[in-house]
Amino acid sequence: MFAGSTRGAIEMVSIDLNSDLGESFGVYRIGYDDELFPLLSSANVACGFHGGDPRTVERTVAACKANGLGFGAHPGFPDLVGFGRRPLFCTPDDIRTDTLYQLGAVDAFCRAAGVRMQHVKPHGALTNMAQHDAAISDAIVAAVNAFDSSLMLFAMPGSELERAGARAGIRVAREAFADRAYNSDGSLVNRRLPGAMITDPAVAAARIVRLVTEGLIQTIDGQVLELQVDTICSHSDTPGALEIVQAVRAGLTAAGVSIQAPVQ
Amino acid sequence: MFAGSTRGAIEMVSIDLNSDLGESFGVYRIGYDDELFPLLSSANVACGFHGGDPRTVERTVAACKANGLGFGAHPGFPDLVGFGRRPLFCTPDDIRTDTLYQLGAVDAFCRAAGVRMQHVKPHGALTNMAQHDAAISDAIVAAVNAFDSSLMLFAMPGSELERAGARAGIRVAREAFADRAYNSDGSLVNRRLPGAMITDPAVAAARIVRLVTEGLIQTIDGQVLELQVDTICSHSDTPGALEIVQAVRAGLTAAGVSIQAPVQ
Amino acid sequence: MFAGSTRGAIEMVSIDLNSDLGESFGVYRIGYDDELFPLLSSANVACGFHGGDPRTVERTVAACKANGLGFGAHPGFPDLVGFGRRPLFCTPDDIRTDTLYQLGAVDAFCRAAGVRMQHVKPHGALTNMAQHDAAISDAIVAAVNAFDSSLMLFAMPGSELERAGARAGIRVAREAFADRAYNSDGSLVNRRLPGAMITDPAVAAARIVRLVTEGLIQTIDGQVLELQVDTICSHSDTPGALEIVQAVRAGLTAAGVSIQAPVQ
Amino acid sequence: MFAGSTRGAIEMVSIDLNSDLGESFGVYRIGYDDELFPLLSSANVACGFHGGDPRTVERTVAACKANGLGFGAHPGFPDLVGFGRRPLFCTPDDIRTDTLYQLGAVDAFCRAAGVRMQHVKPHGALTNMAQHDAAISDAIVAAVNAFDSSLMLFAMPGSELERAGARAGIRVAREAFADRAYNSDGSLVNRRLPGAMITDPAVAAARIVRLVTEGLIQTIDGQVLELQVDTICSHSDTPGALEIVQAVRAGLTAAGVSIQAPVQ
Repeated sequence: MFAGSTRGAIEMVSIDLNSDLGESFGVYRIGYDDELFPLLSSANVACGFHGGDPRTVERTVAACKANGLGFGAHPGFPDLVGFGRRPLFCTPDDIRTDTLYQLGAVDAFCRAAGVRMQHVKPHGALTNMAQHDAAISDAIVAAVNAFDSSLMLFAMPGSELERAGARAGIRVAREAFADRAYNSDGSLVNRRLPGAMITDPAVAAARIVRLVTEGLIQTIDGQVLELQVDTICSHSDTPGALEIVQAVRAGLTAAGVSIQAPVQ
Repeated sequence: MFAGSTRGAIEMVSIDLNSDLGESFGVYRIGYDDELFPLLSSANVACGFHGGDPRTVERTVAACKANGLGFGAHPGFPDLVGFGRRPLFCTPDDIRTDTLYQLGAVDAFCRAAGVRMQHVKPHGALTNMAQHDAAISDAIVAAVNAFDSSLMLFAMPGSELERAGARAGIRVAREAFADRAYNSDGSLVNRRLPGAMITDPAVAAARIVRLVTEGLIQTIDGQVLELQVDTICSHSDTPGALEIVQAVRAGLTAAGVSIQAPVQ
Repeated sequence: MFAGSTRGAIEMVSIDLNSDLGESFGVYRIGYDDELFPLLSSANVACGFHGGDPRTVERTVAACKANGLGFGAHPGFPDLVGFGRRPLFCTPDDIRTDTLYQLGAVDAFCRAAGVRMQHVKPHGALTNMAQHDAAISDAIVAAVNAFDSSLMLFAMPGSELERAGARAGIRVAREAFADRAYNSDGSLVNRRLPGAMITDPAVAAARIVRLVTEGLIQTIDGQVLELQVDTICSHSDTPGALEIVQAVRAGLTAAGVSIQAPVQ
Repeated sequence: MFAGSTRGAIEMVSIDLNSDLGESFGVYRIGYDDELFPLLSSANVACGFHGGDPRTVERTVAACKANGLGFGAHPGFPDLVGFGRRPLFCTPDDIRTDTLYQLGAVDAFCRAAGVRMQHVKPHGALTNMAQHDAAISDAIVAAVNAFDSSLMLFAMPGSELERAGARAGIRVAREAFADRAYNSDGSLVNRRLPGAMITDPAVAAARIVRLVTEGLIQTIDGQVLELQVDTICSHSDTPGALEIVQAVRAGLTAAGVSIQAPVQ
């Protein structure tokens, strides 16, 4: 993100680092939440439909507050056994109301903790479907807008979700992925294709430093893509997730980029 | 409720009539919501754990708004197949966080509709357990207080839940039941005992008129109990539920009692 | 079905009448099960994923036994709030294992009641997706085959599900729908199109009598389609469902067709 | 268990080692299943209500078969978020039908794999409640008996569950716990009390060797209790669970005790 402030003669560049957290459920623990909290500036927190439960939400809000992270709701499909990763062809009205329900549910814990919700980022199959579907994106945005029109929306640049946010006047933070390869149209390479996942922390860090400082990222077919982004996502359950975030953070810091939540 | 206003020489008595609504789930419909909305002044709306779903919550909020009913959250145990009627021995912390989650979830639909939530009334086994258990009652009240300390709590007079509300400085509306017989200690006669259910609309109406205008109700063993109440509940799924509410409302109106939500 | 036996000079034609039953859940009741049991020869019984619960399964097995109905398992997607009507893009392996789980679960109640399971018919979005998808159909058939290869499969003639059953050597009962219009390719007219639903009991009865006795059905564009069927489904939750089943049964009986479960 | 066979002059003592496995759910993994399979002779496999899902059941059946373990169903309360550890006051009929449903569901995977189900062991709060409640125990046993009266039941010696099994003529394998301290009446010391958990593998092993070879176990207050047992449970999610099973197995083997499933 280039919306840095100018201090004296030096332009200060900052970027947000986010990850999906709070996805544990009951006795089931998942992700490296404890290790990631100190490394990130924003968290996307599961709302109980694809993962998460009321106790986990409360713990995660508290950890976000303690670590100074921006708190985001991470609503998903009502499919715990599939972890919200399976496309569910419900109506836009189902999506709008399910999203509204989840926003309210996690916001209750923010209110109780005196934390202001920062953003909304749809999860898994819901966000994948929204990328290319204006009706689904409008449904998500309608829920955000009805709940609190000052919330930010995390969306991939060029996606239908970004356009839906713009149509509704919602502020959008453009998101890139540290652990994923890009096609030359700016979309992510399908997970099942070879090379889709960036697993080498040093590679991930170098790519993200270039993206944040130069606005450029190399695509899977060797081209160089211009991309303006405000927040960098690293998945919390990828093998080596922690090492990737550590390397990305270290690389950015060494390049003089500050890690901070998107300016509200 | 005797907190009526005096207009000229006439003391105007008013009472709240409430019922549990919005308990349908997906394609499954339950209760006589459409018929009851015009007859009541407050609704207790299922929050998705024992009944209700996001679409049903939204429809019910809209109907409360259209009919001028006070909207209440009706949180229950996470037991859809048991409809929240089976005691679940979880921790007070489970109850507090489950309640907070449910309050937030339904409040999202109130916010979206521009409706202010009026009250909270626990459902089924949760409210039954709270009657006699200070720790459970404190857990429910802690959730209410953390979410919005200006909310009212519906509780039976003499219950632990009433005491917990008082301890926390939450305003309590004292509740009586139109379709239930009373023991001489002010508790409800166990549903399984003969005579526990008041099924004759005329009898229910006469009892409630006396209770509201004189503060007296006859107990199952023939005594007369003094009871101060602010709201009258009729269950929406009892056989003859609709006839009871109609008779109670007509009887109260004929006795000069106005039906209105508790003064906020 | 023309596989009737010849008694003296008279060819006796018989057909199976089926409906989806046992879809109630907990306190929630749906369908006209009690009225339909005496009118049908087979029941497709919800298995707890899209509807049904253990108590409902047990009651429905007992009613099938008492009324002499063939018992069929009616597995669906794990989507209670959507009643299994929303397409869920899970893997064939998810479908195979979910189906196997559901077959076993309801068969336990058959074993306990001394009833032999007769058939399997997938529900809702699962059966709709299977019509045109060989991989999904093979997954369903693999579960049936692994559980009990002597079970029958109910499938629409011409569907991928019918072909998958044939490939596996599973006996298929070809199904037609009393309350649905047909396209000239033998598929059902989309529910959302005008004329898709047959709601007039007399019309439904006349169509089914012709189909069963002559093997012909008029399509929505006025053509006449040849169709060989073994079982006729009437939905249990369509408006006028009961009247349609009554009319179809009366019409078939008047035409000398006996109503009986498919020959095992 | 002293029902060992006599080979020449040497009496061969054998004992069953069991653990609760297959409790993962969707993407959520729990327990040390892969490490435990080679060390045990029986597994109690979650049935999808408190833990487990169809894919996990299938994987666990396959692993039991590959490792030669006796397969047991481990039915629990329908409370995934509470992992079946919270007492749920439902009716005996709820318990009987929930148990029957779960037995059938997991048995489908046994049938598909050509594995014969060996036993049933209730889980968590259900088994705890059954210890002291004849009606609950009878409900569990009724489900077992209706499903397959040749199944074994795992129950603590002296429990109501053991008595219910005896009343119904079900064969009971008496169970002891390697990681729990005992009261002098043969009950387990409450988990919340100091000393309740045996966490030192060497201590656990020595206690179990003595129990199996001498029929004696030291109680928490220093007495020595006579106890006849057929199977030893080690929990799979206790800290150090794996080390305890390894130590117990090594100790028993060193003492000449063979590890094998209870004789059917």
